[in-house]
Amino acid sequence: MLSEFSLIDRFFARRAAAAPRADDGSLGIGDDCALLAPRRGEMLAISTDMLVEGRHFFPDVDPEALGHKALAVNLSDLAAMGAKPQAFTLAFSLPKADEAWLAAFSEGLFNLAERYGCDLIGGDTTGGPLNLCLTVFGSVPPQAALRRDAAQAGDDIWISGTLGDARAGLGVQRGEWPADASDTATFRRALERPEPRIRLGLALRGIAHAALDLSDGLAGDLLHILKRSNVQATVDVDAVPRSDAMRRLSPEIQQRCTLAGGDDYELCFTAPAAARAAVESAGREVAIPVTRIGTISALQSAADRPAIGWRNAAGTPLTLTLQGFDHFHAD
Amino acid sequence: MLSEFSLIDRFFARRAAAAPRADDGSLGIGDDCALLAPRRGEMLAISTDMLVEGRHFFPDVDPEALGHKALAVNLSDLAAMGAKPQAFTLAFSLPKADEAWLAAFSEGLFNLAERYGCDLIGGDTTGGPLNLCLTVFGSVPPQAALRRDAAQAGDDIWISGTLGDARAGLGVQRGEWPADASDTATFRRALERPEPRIRLGLALRGIAHAALDLSDGLAGDLLHILKRSNVQATVDVDAVPRSDAMRRLSPEIQQRCTLAGGDDYELCFTAPAAARAAVESAGREVAIPVTRIGTISALQSAADRPAIGWRNAAGTPLTLTLQGFDHFHAD
Repeated sequence: MLSEFSLIDRFFARRAAAAPRADDGSLGIGDDCALLAPRRGEMLAISTDMLVEGRHFFPDVDPEALGHKALAVNLSDLAAMGAKPQAFTLAFSLPKADEAWLAAFSEGLFNLAERYGCDLIGGDTTGGPLNLCLTVFGSVPPQAALRRDAAQAGDDIWISGTLGDARAGLGVQRGEWPADASDTATFRRALERPEPRIRLGLALRGIAHAALDLSDGLAGDLLHILKRSNVQATVDVDAVPRSDAMRRLSPEIQQRCTLAGGDDYELCFTAPAAARAAVESAGREVAIPVTRIGTISALQSAADRPAIGWRNAAGTPLTLTLQGFDHFHAD
Repeated sequence: MLSEFSLIDRFFARRAAAAPRADDGSLGIGDDCALLAPRRGEMLAISTDMLVEGRHFFPDVDPEALGHKALAVNLSDLAAMGAKPQAFTLAFSLPKADEAWLAAFSEGLFNLAERYGCDLIGGDTTGGPLNLCLTVFGSVPPQAALRRDAAQAGDDIWISGTLGDARAGLGVQRGEWPADASDTATFRRALERPEPRIRLGLALRGIAHAALDLSDGLAGDLLHILKRSNVQATVDVDAVPRSDAMRRLSPEIQQRCTLAGGDDYELCFTAPAAARAAVESAGREVAIPVTRIGTISALQSAADRPAIGWRNAAGTPLTLTLQGFDHFHAD
């Protein structure tokens, strides 16, 4: 622990799951280990992410927003698995214990955690360059988990929400393109306060085949599904959902932000064509827009590689150059 | 991922639990989350540690030893809970992807992991100042978990192995005191290659009451048990086990290294006096020496605070000043 132990204790231990809970025998912080079990018949879905200053966030980031985002990007992985959040651990190194910074950071973190019933059950704090490492735990029936290797030929490809706003916000901050005050606020909110699509992930259990969350951009992330499922995709770039603010940027910037933007934390998932009404109903039920952007097909020969065929709304094939469009974190 | 993705893949993904295992439906790296369950009727014991260059290890540390130690200190937390290792996640930031460094680091890491049947199931890699964050998962029946709050008046206090060698090694490296080549090697091995007491932790299930692993020194760590169990302790400082190399240092240095040294990763546990033969038998069974160093007693009044009363072999009370003796990591 930092020598400023009482500060850490004040901002974190206080809101953590410290006491063993009578209902399930779990044990929170204060012992060598936390004790946790998934719900009966289920498994724990586990994901870990490390966020480094200057790489995943700016040194002058609003600490409340950082607390939110650090947990949000991890919860987004649970959403993409169809898992229900249960708990998380937090390890971080800090150059110094700054009371105002810790107060705001913990506020952003716990406000999100409490909305999803996700308890802090353990952690570690140390001195050093600013680094945050969170590990999240959710519960999911193994047969209902939304895996990357489950896409099937004939599936539709769906996207939640809209894409590209976070990258557009980074571009405005970097001076790559201008936007008016209102659009800048829209973009900045997308960049700083992504909302994990937990409720959608749960609603898609038993409906979707494959799913992942978009952190590095659609072009790169969808490929993960294609490779692990050994299939290919056709995507209508004009169907990719975007905000009104995004529509006010140039068509070229829109295309790059929506297809290779990164930091979206929306779900990309596949589902059989017969499930279209069920997918739309799931989206309505949780009040999260879902948009169909393409289809999955089988590889045509043994020499064929999983790849994305881009089309415009008229069905004309496009050759896109999306490499080299860096987003905030390239890892 | 680092742009040097193939290097990471080569050294880590290759030895990770990538494929779903038929026996239990678990899922390793390559998806949004890993899927893991404890053994039937058990719970997952979870611990996370962050290691920072310059604070927990020297910049010129042998990377193979670092790989070993990074996992060892986490497995030590499972040992202290009486949990059987199952899996771990690894997140790290690296200034650059150095092939020789990664090869040696991963070798040290996986050699230890494989000895304890502990699979890498997920992780994250990014650029940044060197920082390692591991989270380990073990399985333990909740009623058999060795908790810190379970010490009882009348319990003996036990220590595994010997204490102080790691701190003596740090002192030699820092030039605080000399040692000959053989003792230096002994100390250095203790500092760089602690052996997690997994088998002892398992053997103590149903025998020990409370347990923890010693990472910050006996004086500070034993207090955690006392505070959480609301009891006090009497410890014979001359009974604290030490190596022959340690015995060749001055009595004053011996006392400080063994009582406040840190980085020991030995178990400190309590067990009823009636279980002495069972404790000794458990130690013999796993070939790890166990030594009785004191006793637990009840607080004498409502004003009494959990504390350690130090005695010498003759039973004479000692007043020790152990504050200010810094070990390698003060957190």
